[in-house]
Amino acid sequence: MNEVSTNILLIHCPDESGLIHKITGVIYRYGLNIISNGEFVDRVGNRFFMRTEFSGVPPTDLLHELHALLPANASVKLTTLKNKDVVIMATKEHHCLGDLLIRHSYKELNANIKGVISNYPDLEGIAKRFEIPFTCISHEGKTREEHEKEIYAVVKTYKPDFIVLAKYMRVLSPAFVSLFNNRIINIHHSFLPAFTGANPYAQAFERGVKIIGATAHFVNDSLDEGPIIAQSVIPVAHSHSVKEMTQAGRDVEKQVLAHSLDLVLKEKVFVDGNKTIIFD
Amino acid sequence: MNEVSTNILLIHCPDESGLIHKITGVIYRYGLNIISNGEFVDRVGNRFFMRTEFSGVPPTDLLHELHALLPANASVKLTTLKNKDVVIMATKEHHCLGDLLIRHSYKELNANIKGVISNYPDLEGIAKRFEIPFTCISHEGKTREEHEKEIYAVVKTYKPDFIVLAKYMRVLSPAFVSLFNNRIINIHHSFLPAFTGANPYAQAFERGVKIIGATAHFVNDSLDEGPIIAQSVIPVAHSHSVKEMTQAGRDVEKQVLAHSLDLVLKEKVFVDGNKTIIFD
Amino acid sequence: MNEVSTNILLIHCPDESGLIHKITGVIYRYGLNIISNGEFVDRVGNRFFMRTEFSGVPPTDLLHELHALLPANASVKLTTLKNKDVVIMATKEHHCLGDLLIRHSYKELNANIKGVISNYPDLEGIAKRFEIPFTCISHEGKTREEHEKEIYAVVKTYKPDFIVLAKYMRVLSPAFVSLFNNRIINIHHSFLPAFTGANPYAQAFERGVKIIGATAHFVNDSLDEGPIIAQSVIPVAHSHSVKEMTQAGRDVEKQVLAHSLDLVLKEKVFVDGNKTIIFD
Amino acid sequence: MNEVSTNILLIHCPDESGLIHKITGVIYRYGLNIISNGEFVDRVGNRFFMRTEFSGVPPTDLLHELHALLPANASVKLTTLKNKDVVIMATKEHHCLGDLLIRHSYKELNANIKGVISNYPDLEGIAKRFEIPFTCISHEGKTREEHEKEIYAVVKTYKPDFIVLAKYMRVLSPAFVSLFNNRIINIHHSFLPAFTGANPYAQAFERGVKIIGATAHFVNDSLDEGPIIAQSVIPVAHSHSVKEMTQAGRDVEKQVLAHSLDLVLKEKVFVDGNKTIIFD
Repeated sequence: MNEVSTNILLIHCPDESGLIHKITGVIYRYGLNIISNGEFVDRVGNRFFMRTEFSGVPPTDLLHELHALLPANASVKLTTLKNKDVVIMATKEHHCLGDLLIRHSYKELNANIKGVISNYPDLEGIAKRFEIPFTCISHEGKTREEHEKEIYAVVKTYKPDFIVLAKYMRVLSPAFVSLFNNRIINIHHSFLPAFTGANPYAQAFERGVKIIGATAHFVNDSLDEGPIIAQSVIPVAHSHSVKEMTQAGRDVEKQVLAHSLDLVLKEKVFVDGNKTIIFD
Repeated sequence: MNEVSTNILLIHCPDESGLIHKITGVIYRYGLNIISNGEFVDRVGNRFFMRTEFSGVPPTDLLHELHALLPANASVKLTTLKNKDVVIMATKEHHCLGDLLIRHSYKELNANIKGVISNYPDLEGIAKRFEIPFTCISHEGKTREEHEKEIYAVVKTYKPDFIVLAKYMRVLSPAFVSLFNNRIINIHHSFLPAFTGANPYAQAFERGVKIIGATAHFVNDSLDEGPIIAQSVIPVAHSHSVKEMTQAGRDVEKQVLAHSLDLVLKEKVFVDGNKTIIFD
Repeated sequence: MNEVSTNILLIHCPDESGLIHKITGVIYRYGLNIISNGEFVDRVGNRFFMRTEFSGVPPTDLLHELHALLPANASVKLTTLKNKDVVIMATKEHHCLGDLLIRHSYKELNANIKGVISNYPDLEGIAKRFEIPFTCISHEGKTREEHEKEIYAVVKTYKPDFIVLAKYMRVLSPAFVSLFNNRIINIHHSFLPAFTGANPYAQAFERGVKIIGATAHFVNDSLDEGPIIAQSVIPVAHSHSVKEMTQAGRDVEKQVLAHSLDLVLKEKVFVDGNKTIIFD
Repeated sequence: MNEVSTNILLIHCPDESGLIHKITGVIYRYGLNIISNGEFVDRVGNRFFMRTEFSGVPPTDLLHELHALLPANASVKLTTLKNKDVVIMATKEHHCLGDLLIRHSYKELNANIKGVISNYPDLEGIAKRFEIPFTCISHEGKTREEHEKEIYAVVKTYKPDFIVLAKYMRVLSPAFVSLFNNRIINIHHSFLPAFTGANPYAQAFERGVKIIGATAHFVNDSLDEGPIIAQSVIPVAHSHSVKEMTQAGRDVEKQVLAHSLDLVLKEKVFVDGNKTIIFD
């Protein structure tokens, strides 16, 4: 923990008077230098959120001191900007995976991609181009429980900080999701909450919408319902076919997924119930 | 019909070979000058759509000649860019109405606003500022049928080409809607099909979305389900309250409604089943 | 100063260690409740900026206490969310003025519009609709100095906190601008720094751009060069005429101007050299 | 020429009456089936542009027949949607090149990338991952003329339909450009015409803009001045460093370049003086 890189302090707790003063007091007293600071109070839930970047060597008992000042059930996390370990799960589509692999190969992702797991063999080629281990675990002839057990056996060998669903087209069970609480990021190919479920571009085409979008979110028990991290949209027109909408949507998907990963991997995202608080 | 202003010819019919050649042939033969021309074929429904602006005096039997060349059930409409007569229905919110009244007072709307009808008296002031007749028809103590009967009695005196629902917050009955088929334009305060129904900004806040939007659409029997004319969005953040999302949404609503009216009143919009074809 | 409404504390000064801790300490000690808080350090200029909203009655010597803790040349401002007094200057175009007048008439602007001044009589009608004093001060046959002297004679009777140039199409002299340092907001009809000067839509049309925009900025000595508050854009196409680009641009202009005024009038904007820091 | 794939007919000429009727008449007479059709008249230059997609085998004398009907100096081009041959030139930055290589490897680009040429060796790795020939031609110690002569020696072996400057950071001479008239596409890292020249993100940071962008354009004699094909923007804030603006800008650059290539390679772009006409 005593490294000299940029430190990130993440605190959330019930709101009460004087929190900023108390927290910055500890940092100030140790001669640590705040680089940037952000606070937010969720007035509905009366929750306080604070993210502080600071330089200098944090003392070993910083967390203890902070806990002593804060409400009893405060969450305090001290981390750094070092790369996080990530496993990518995908199915057949390459656009999100390919974009992440290029960013990773040029060290732009703040992550070590430890491996790619897919239920089809199609993406082995692109993973190999970037020398990332690829494991195909077919779901065919298996129950969801059996399939996820095999996936988990591989995932756990990577000890990932986060799992990225880069167009993984199967629903994960609550049991699997609960193993990685708020640590699974999914890209959904629509502007949620519109067009949940499969085939959103066909739905969008049928409905005659003039804008389509993509949503990156943490995965929780309910499909397509976890806290939203980022969304973006592009205009479409009556002249676009489903195929053209799909292609246009892919460019939005990969951009939104990369952006949301950048936020998550730089520890800029708090989860607040079914929402996210983002310090950017 | 024999005026010298810009003429607009709107044709839709089952697609078949040679339609553009035949239609432009009639125009060419009469020495009419095409200013702009657009065609679209809906490949799913195999429908042909064509919009032609031309100058010159159209001969009286232009439509007959065209019908003789086209498939039996072709729709052929010849109109001009002259102002259309419009009635606005609203409830309490002023932002869409006010924006339309200013545009109208400076002759930017391609419309004559004949009157404003509301189920509350709140907007009488803004209508009066712009010298537009205002009628308050309260819905209280009346069945929907009775209320709409009173509204219709006023509306029909204006003989409107279009009815604009500028934040009219009550559901119109299928019976009323059927009197103005594809001639009622509504602004819905969300990015349809997300957040149908009442209070979409509260829904958006609860869901923690990162983008909100607005949708202008023709009204048909099903609430929030008619052909979409235009949509637009703006980003929001976790720091925005429901009130701030609502305020931000209003700016999008009025811009989308004005834009969609501009398209409709300039005869740039075809309805194709539950979609629109827009020649812009 | 001792009112109970929301207070806003605005501080900027050279950055040094412990500033947040010291400032929040004073607020905490007086039992004042922080509603929201934002800080930013400009690393290039090593300047610290902090905006704090708090409720409660601020003690009379709050500013003295803060100055005692802060670097010698710190700027400390204590204000509230009460409406600011505003004068609008315009020329002939109505779209920005009309939008502000409607917002003002529904108390959405956080401002009291004291009067409208124009160098042409065209906008008297719209001002009268909203019962706002209108003064026409023609520039014809006058030097810029003479003209501005007449304008100033009217402006000063209103004692405005801010002057809004809502499409005022003449260049203000440095002498006039210096009387209202960082208190004049202009809407420029282009995406600055592209297309400075007159007739930007004609320039945009000539250049064949695919996006046009608008820029709201504080006015300083150099035309079109003050700190930018807000910008927005919309797509255009080869099929748009200069007139259509102008019309599309107007909708962006009025939206950007209203948004930037909302930021300024809610005291969310710091000027940092030739840039703005915005706490939103 | 007698293939059965989708044919594309591109015509531009001085505008005159009856052009659409005459052109579609030839197509109709040969029993060719129009899939989509677009026309545009540049009213300033009085130029007519038409793009027609049709299926069926075009007769060998189609072009002769068309020329016979059209004004003397009409440009008539008959092509297909088959892949075009492309050479990519780059310098050190990988984001645009990488994005194009992935799209190419999945056959999404409508192009055969024949080779990559760079004045630095940095990008050899990414080209090799995708098995595309890479040639490093250093400019050091050479005149521009000498350097371009070496580049041309390589380029001509590929016989490219188009040259893509995917962040090639040197200015091409008019002599070189004239060899590939309207066939060189460049991505400029700013929202032209703002921030021409080098280091636009540093310029944008200095100016304190709230939106940055990217521009894809054909290259002509004047640097940063050719016909614009596509532009896009993203918002930035005072909190963004030059580095963060640069990173954000890269995502826009690669998206705009890919989109503009899609338009060009599908033959949807006409050059009209210093502008483009786009049929999408």
